[in-house]
Amino acid sequence: MRKVCVVVGSRANYSSIKSVMCAVRANPDLKLQLIVGASALLDRFGSVVDVIEADGFEADAKVTMIVEGETPGTMAKSTGLGLLELPTIYGMLKPDVVVSVGDRFETMATAVAAAYMNIPLAHTMGGEISGTIDESIRHAVTKLSHLHFPANRQAAERIIRMGEDPTMVHVVGCPRIDLVAEIAKGDGHLESPDWLEREGAGAHITLDTPFLLVSQHPVTTEYGQGEPQIVETLAALHDLRMPTIMLWPNADAGSEDVSRGMRKFREKYRPEYIRFYKNFPIETYARLMLSCGCALGNSSAPLREGAYMGVPSVNIGTRQQGRDRADNVVDVPHERRAIVAAVKSQLAHGRYPSNHLYGDGDAGGRIAKILVESPLRVQKRLAY
Amino acid sequence: MRKVCVVVGSRANYSSIKSVMCAVRANPDLKLQLIVGASALLDRFGSVVDVIEADGFEADAKVTMIVEGETPGTMAKSTGLGLLELPTIYGMLKPDVVVSVGDRFETMATAVAAAYMNIPLAHTMGGEISGTIDESIRHAVTKLSHLHFPANRQAAERIIRMGEDPTMVHVVGCPRIDLVAEIAKGDGHLESPDWLEREGAGAHITLDTPFLLVSQHPVTTEYGQGEPQIVETLAALHDLRMPTIMLWPNADAGSEDVSRGMRKFREKYRPEYIRFYKNFPIETYARLMLSCGCALGNSSAPLREGAYMGVPSVNIGTRQQGRDRADNVVDVPHERRAIVAAVKSQLAHGRYPSNHLYGDGDAGGRIAKILVESPLRVQKRLAY
Amino acid sequence: MRKVCVVVGSRANYSSIKSVMCAVRANPDLKLQLIVGASALLDRFGSVVDVIEADGFEADAKVTMIVEGETPGTMAKSTGLGLLELPTIYGMLKPDVVVSVGDRFETMATAVAAAYMNIPLAHTMGGEISGTIDESIRHAVTKLSHLHFPANRQAAERIIRMGEDPTMVHVVGCPRIDLVAEIAKGDGHLESPDWLEREGAGAHITLDTPFLLVSQHPVTTEYGQGEPQIVETLAALHDLRMPTIMLWPNADAGSEDVSRGMRKFREKYRPEYIRFYKNFPIETYARLMLSCGCALGNSSAPLREGAYMGVPSVNIGTRQQGRDRADNVVDVPHERRAIVAAVKSQLAHGRYPSNHLYGDGDAGGRIAKILVESPLRVQKRLAY
Amino acid sequence: MRKVCVVVGSRANYSSIKSVMCAVRANPDLKLQLIVGASALLDRFGSVVDVIEADGFEADAKVTMIVEGETPGTMAKSTGLGLLELPTIYGMLKPDVVVSVGDRFETMATAVAAAYMNIPLAHTMGGEISGTIDESIRHAVTKLSHLHFPANRQAAERIIRMGEDPTMVHVVGCPRIDLVAEIAKGDGHLESPDWLEREGAGAHITLDTPFLLVSQHPVTTEYGQGEPQIVETLAALHDLRMPTIMLWPNADAGSEDVSRGMRKFREKYRPEYIRFYKNFPIETYARLMLSCGCALGNSSAPLREGAYMGVPSVNIGTRQQGRDRADNVVDVPHERRAIVAAVKSQLAHGRYPSNHLYGDGDAGGRIAKILVESPLRVQKRLAY
Repeated sequence: MRKVCVVVGSRANYSSIKSVMCAVRANPDLKLQLIVGASALLDRFGSVVDVIEADGFEADAKVTMIVEGETPGTMAKSTGLGLLELPTIYGMLKPDVVVSVGDRFETMATAVAAAYMNIPLAHTMGGEISGTIDESIRHAVTKLSHLHFPANRQAAERIIRMGEDPTMVHVVGCPRIDLVAEIAKGDGHLESPDWLEREGAGAHITLDTPFLLVSQHPVTTEYGQGEPQIVETLAALHDLRMPTIMLWPNADAGSEDVSRGMRKFREKYRPEYIRFYKNFPIETYARLMLSCGCALGNSSAPLREGAYMGVPSVNIGTRQQGRDRADNVVDVPHERRAIVAAVKSQLAHGRYPSNHLYGDGDAGGRIAKILVESPLRVQKRLAY
Repeated sequence: MRKVCVVVGSRANYSSIKSVMCAVRANPDLKLQLIVGASALLDRFGSVVDVIEADGFEADAKVTMIVEGETPGTMAKSTGLGLLELPTIYGMLKPDVVVSVGDRFETMATAVAAAYMNIPLAHTMGGEISGTIDESIRHAVTKLSHLHFPANRQAAERIIRMGEDPTMVHVVGCPRIDLVAEIAKGDGHLESPDWLEREGAGAHITLDTPFLLVSQHPVTTEYGQGEPQIVETLAALHDLRMPTIMLWPNADAGSEDVSRGMRKFREKYRPEYIRFYKNFPIETYARLMLSCGCALGNSSAPLREGAYMGVPSVNIGTRQQGRDRADNVVDVPHERRAIVAAVKSQLAHGRYPSNHLYGDGDAGGRIAKILVESPLRVQKRLAY
Repeated sequence: MRKVCVVVGSRANYSSIKSVMCAVRANPDLKLQLIVGASALLDRFGSVVDVIEADGFEADAKVTMIVEGETPGTMAKSTGLGLLELPTIYGMLKPDVVVSVGDRFETMATAVAAAYMNIPLAHTMGGEISGTIDESIRHAVTKLSHLHFPANRQAAERIIRMGEDPTMVHVVGCPRIDLVAEIAKGDGHLESPDWLEREGAGAHITLDTPFLLVSQHPVTTEYGQGEPQIVETLAALHDLRMPTIMLWPNADAGSEDVSRGMRKFREKYRPEYIRFYKNFPIETYARLMLSCGCALGNSSAPLREGAYMGVPSVNIGTRQQGRDRADNVVDVPHERRAIVAAVKSQLAHGRYPSNHLYGDGDAGGRIAKILVESPLRVQKRLAY
Repeated sequence: MRKVCVVVGSRANYSSIKSVMCAVRANPDLKLQLIVGASALLDRFGSVVDVIEADGFEADAKVTMIVEGETPGTMAKSTGLGLLELPTIYGMLKPDVVVSVGDRFETMATAVAAAYMNIPLAHTMGGEISGTIDESIRHAVTKLSHLHFPANRQAAERIIRMGEDPTMVHVVGCPRIDLVAEIAKGDGHLESPDWLEREGAGAHITLDTPFLLVSQHPVTTEYGQGEPQIVETLAALHDLRMPTIMLWPNADAGSEDVSRGMRKFREKYRPEYIRFYKNFPIETYARLMLSCGCALGNSSAPLREGAYMGVPSVNIGTRQQGRDRADNVVDVPHERRAIVAAVKSQLAHGRYPSNHLYGDGDAGGRIAKILVESPLRVQKRLAY
C-alpha cells in the first residue's frame, strides 16, 4: 500500500487537490498522509485548515511557515522555513510519493525536500503558462518531479517538450474541475445564503440579481504596483455599483499592497454594494461562480472552472498571460474604463457553453489510479 | 554600473566561477559582490574561503549553512538555511544580477531567493546532463534563471528546447576551462611539490612516475551505496598500487559513507602509495590533472578539463551518465576488475588530443561582457 | 571606539531604547550599529522602521523574522529565525557589545546569539517583575547578560540576588522616561492633531475633553483567553462612551484573539467614540499619555511613564502583576464593571504627583557613558 | 497519564538522562516521549541514537539541527534550528511536561520552545557552577523552567537564591550517578574488551595495567585556544606514555580546534599507547572510569561520577571552575608539566573513598515520582 503525502499550503492549493485527496482516501491500495502548512493555517486567510478538517481529513502535521511581511524576501524565507521542517516530517511519515500542487511559492519547498530526499514527486497542474513568479516555480517544480499530472493535452506537450519522460506524463484534467462538475450536476443554487450573510464583512447584499465575483492577487514580478492595480479595479466596481462578492488577496509578495488599497477604499467609500471574504468553502466558491453574472480579477479560477461552467469572465493584467483559455474570458489591462466596458459586455453576453479545456471532472480518480500503478523512479534524466 | 553577486558554496563552485569573478572584477562597468557559504567555509572541505581570500577576493558575507549529517534530509535543510539567510543579505547588497553556478544543492537556495526577489538570475553550466540529484537541480535552476551561460552548443540547444528565450542563451564555454587553458600555456610542471608534501595526509609519494588522480563523490540518488561503491575503487587502487593522489568526497548526501569506506581502508591497509587531500588550490588541481597518468572516479572534471587537456580518464558509475564527453573518457561500472582494466588501458594509451568540447578558455571574459550588455528581465515566459 | 549594536524588534523596543541610541550616536567614543527586525518591520504594527529612519537612524540590517500565526509555537519559531540570521549579521558588523532590550520574545534571539558568540551583552530593564512569558524571558536574558542597566534600585537588587556580579549592575533609570521627561519640559500640548486625524481608523474624535488611552496585549501564559479579556474592556468602554484612543495589540501569541475581539466589536457597534491606531511616534504617544484623562489596559507604559507623568491609570489583569508601581495605578481584574468603576474613580481623582520610580530622564546618557568605560568580559560566573 | 517529553541532543545528554527515561518508561502514570537531535544523530559523535535505540527506546522524532562549523556562530544557529523545528514536533506530541537536560547549547532550544508554548518545563542538573558558555545557559534555562531537579543541596540553594519557587525545587541527585551506582554494585570488571578492541582507532592497548581516561572539550568562552590547550595535554600524555583511552571532543564551538590538535599529534607521533574513541555506551564509559588509574581532561564526569567512584582525577583549565567537587579532583592549568605531576601524584594516591556529593543512585526514580505528583504551572514569578 503506497503512502501518498499531500502538502496543502493555501486555499487555492486545497481547491486544487481536494478531489485527489478524496480519491486517495477512498482507494484501498493507497494511504493518504496530509501536511497542512503556510497560509492554510492562518486566520487571516480564512483558516483553511478548519475547512479541511470539517471535510473529514486529519492533518498528520501542521507547519506554520509564513514569514510575515509579504515581500519578495519573506516569500523566499517562507520557502526556506518549509525546507527546514519538511525533511523532519517526511522522515516521520516516510511517504512513498509526495504530491506537490501547482505553482505556489511554498510548493517549491515541498518539491525540493522530496526530490533531495529521494522521495518520488508527483506534480499536478504542470505545463501551464502564466505570469508572476508562478511561471518560474511551476516549470522548476516540473524539473524536480518524477510523475506529471497535467490538466490537458497542451500542458502535457509542454512538459514533454521540456524533456520529461513521456511515459511519466498523464493527462488527467484539473482536479478543481472535479468539484465543479459535481456541483454543476445539482441545481446550481446557492444552498447557504445564511453562511454568506454570517461570514464576511462589509455590505449586506443579496444575490438574487446578477452579481460580480472578484478576486485579485498581487503579481510578484510587478511588486510595488499592487495598490495602483487594485485601485483601478475598485474604481471600476464603484462605477458599476453592482452587488459584489470580493475576496482578499492571497499571501504572495505584495499582498499587503492590494489589501491596503482595498482597506482604504472601504474606509473612504463604505461601499454598500461589496461584501468582503477571506475564504470560502470550495463548494460555496464554485456555486458563487456558477451563479455570478461575471467573474473578474486575475485569479486562474475564471479560466479553469470558468471554462467548464461557461462563466462570463474579465481577466485583468498579466497574471494569467499565456494561460490556455476558452471563449468565456475577455482580457483587459489595469484600466478602470476597460474593466467597466468588458464587464458590461460580458454581462450582456451571458453564459457561455461549457468547455472541457481543463478537464471533464474525473481528475482525482485518474490520479489515484496512476498513483497505485505507476512505476516510481528516483533518478531523473533529460529525455534529449 | 551593474552589481554582480556571486555565491560560492564549495570548492567545485569556486573552480567553476573563479575566471568569471576575475573578469567581473576587472570590468569597470561591473562591481563584484561575493557571498561565500556552505562547505566553502568548512575546514573539513579544505577551507575554500581561505583560498578565495588568498586570491584577493573579499567576501561581503559568509553564511554557514550546512546542516551536518550528509543525509538527503540535511541536504534539503541546508538549502532551507540558505533560503532563510540569503534574502537578508541580498537585501543588504542589492545586486542587479545574481550568478548561480552549476548544479550543487545549495545553488537552489541562491536561485530561488533571487528569482523570488525579482533579482535577475544568471546561470552557468546549465543544459548539461548527468546522474545524481544534480540532474534535477540543474534544470530546475534553468527554469528559474533569466540569463543562461551554457558551456557548449549542445547544452545551449537543450536549454532552448526546455523553453528558454533563445536571445538569453549564450554559448560561452565552461569557466573551468579558462583556468586550465591558462595553465596549459605554461610548461605544465607542478610548481609546488612542497605544498603537496606539506598538506594532505597519508603516504609520502613522489609524482615523478605516472600517478593516479582520484575523486569519487556520493551519488545522492543511490544513497546508502556510497561505501560499497568506494570499496570497489579502493580495491582497484590496492591492486594497481601506483602513486595516487586522492580527494575526500564533497558534502553531498552520502559523503560520510564514502569517507567511512576510505577511513576503514586506510586504517586497515595503511596504503603507502596514497596521499589524501581535502582540497587543492584550483591551479594545483589543474596541474595535477595535466601531469597525472590517469584520472579516475566520478567527478565531472575529467570530462570537462580532462577533455581540454586530453587526460586519460576512467569514469565510474552513473554520476556522469549522459554528460557530453570526448574520447579521453572510458566508462566503467563500480567493479574493481573493470576499473583496473580500464586504468591499465588508459595508461597504455597515454595522452589524448585536446578537445574543446567544454570551451576554449575565454568563458569568463564573454560572461562579463554579456553581464554588462544584456537586457535584464524579471518576468519569465515559456517560449512555446 | 566601541561598536555598540542595538537590535530593535518592536515599537515597544524602540520606545525603550531610543534615548540610548541617541546618546550612543552622540558619543565620540562609541559607534552605533542598528539592526531592525521582527514586528518593527511590519506594516500591521505600524512600520516602526519608518519612524526609526525618520528619526535619522540608518539600519545596518533589516531582518524579517516573524513567523505569522501569533501562536505560542510561532513565537518560538520567530525567535529561532532570529537566532539563524543574527549570527551572520553579527559576523558582518563585529560589534564590541550588543544591547538587548527588555523582555520581548525576539530579545531572546538577540541575547542567545550574542552570548554564544562571545560578544558582551548589555541588558536594559532587567530585574523587574511581571506576568506573561516576559517574566521568564527577562530573567533568562539577565542570566545571559554581562552588563545590566536596571531602571531602579529594586530591580538592581533583584539582579544581584540572582547572582550577577554587582560591579556590572548599574542603576540608570528606564530610557523610556528620558523621552517623557523631555516632552514634559514642554507645554505638554499635543502638537499634531492633524497627524492623529490623518492616521488611524474609526471614529473622528476630538481630544479637547478628557479622553481615554487604551492599550491591551495578549497574555501568552493565558493563551486562548485574549478575546474574552478584551471583550470586558470593550464593554467597559461602551459603557463609558468617552473619546478613546485605542492601540491594536503587539505581536505576542494570542494577538489575533485580541484583534478579533476588537474587529468584531467595531463591526457590530461602529463605536463613534473610539479611534484605532497601529502605532504612534513615541513622542505622540507620550503626549497622548500626558494629556489623557486615564490610561488603561495592561501595557507597562502607565506604570513606567505614567508614574513619572502622574497619569491616572487602570491596570487590567495579570500582565503587570508584581511590577513596581506608584500611586497612579489602580489594579482591576478582567471584569467590565470593575473597569468602569476604576476609570471613573481615576478620572475623579485626576493627575498624581510625579514619581521617579522608573528614572529621572537621563538613562540614555548614563548608559552611553558606562558603555564607554565598563570592562567587558565574556565568561560569566554565578556570584555565590 | 502525563506525557513526559525528553529531548536528547548529545552523548553527554543521554548519560545524564538515561536513568530518568528508564524510570518514566517503567511508571504506569507516565508516558515517555523521546526526541533525539543535534550531535546525538551524527556519526562523527558516535551515532548516540543507535545506542539509544539499542537500549530499547524509540525516538518519536529525530531532528538534525547541527549547523556545521563548530564556531560560536554555528552554535547559535544550531539552537535556532532547534527552535524552528521543536514547536512543530511539540505540536504533534502535545507533551504535558518537557524535560531539558543540563547546560548544552541545544538545551536552550528545548527550553525556550517549551516555555514559549506554555508547556511546563523540568530541568535537571541546574544550580551548578562551571566555566564556558554552559554557565550562562544553565542559569538561563533555570529561569525558563518550572520544575527543578538539582543534584545536591548546594545546587538547590543556588536555584532558590536565584528566585525560584522553593516548592518546585527538588534535590534528587544527578541521574548519571544512577548508572554508576548500578555498575559499582557489580564486580567492576570491564565486560567488553572485545568491544574496545573492535571500536575506536589508533593503538592496540591493554587495560590490565593502570591506564588513563582522557576527555577534553573546547571552552567556548576561550574560543581559538582549543588547539594550544590540547597540545599541552597531549604533550603530557607523550611524557607519561601510559596506556590511554581518549575521547574526541563534543560539538561545542572550537571542537575542530581540539580535533585538529589531536589529529596532528596522531599523524606526527603515531602514539602506540593511545586509542581514540568517538563515543562509548554509557556503561562502558562508567566501567572504564571505575577501572582507570586516573581520569583527566575538563569533562564534568570525573567531578560527578568520579566523586561517587573515588576516581583519582586531574581537572585541566577553567571549564569546571566553580563546580562543587570532592577530594578526588586535583586542578591544574593548561601546562604540560603541571599535568604530568598531578597525574603522577594521583596515580600514587590511588582510589579515594566514595563521596555522594552528586547523589546516591536513585535520581531517576525520584524524578519520575515527582513528575507524577507535582503541580505543573505555566506562569512563573520571581520569588522576591
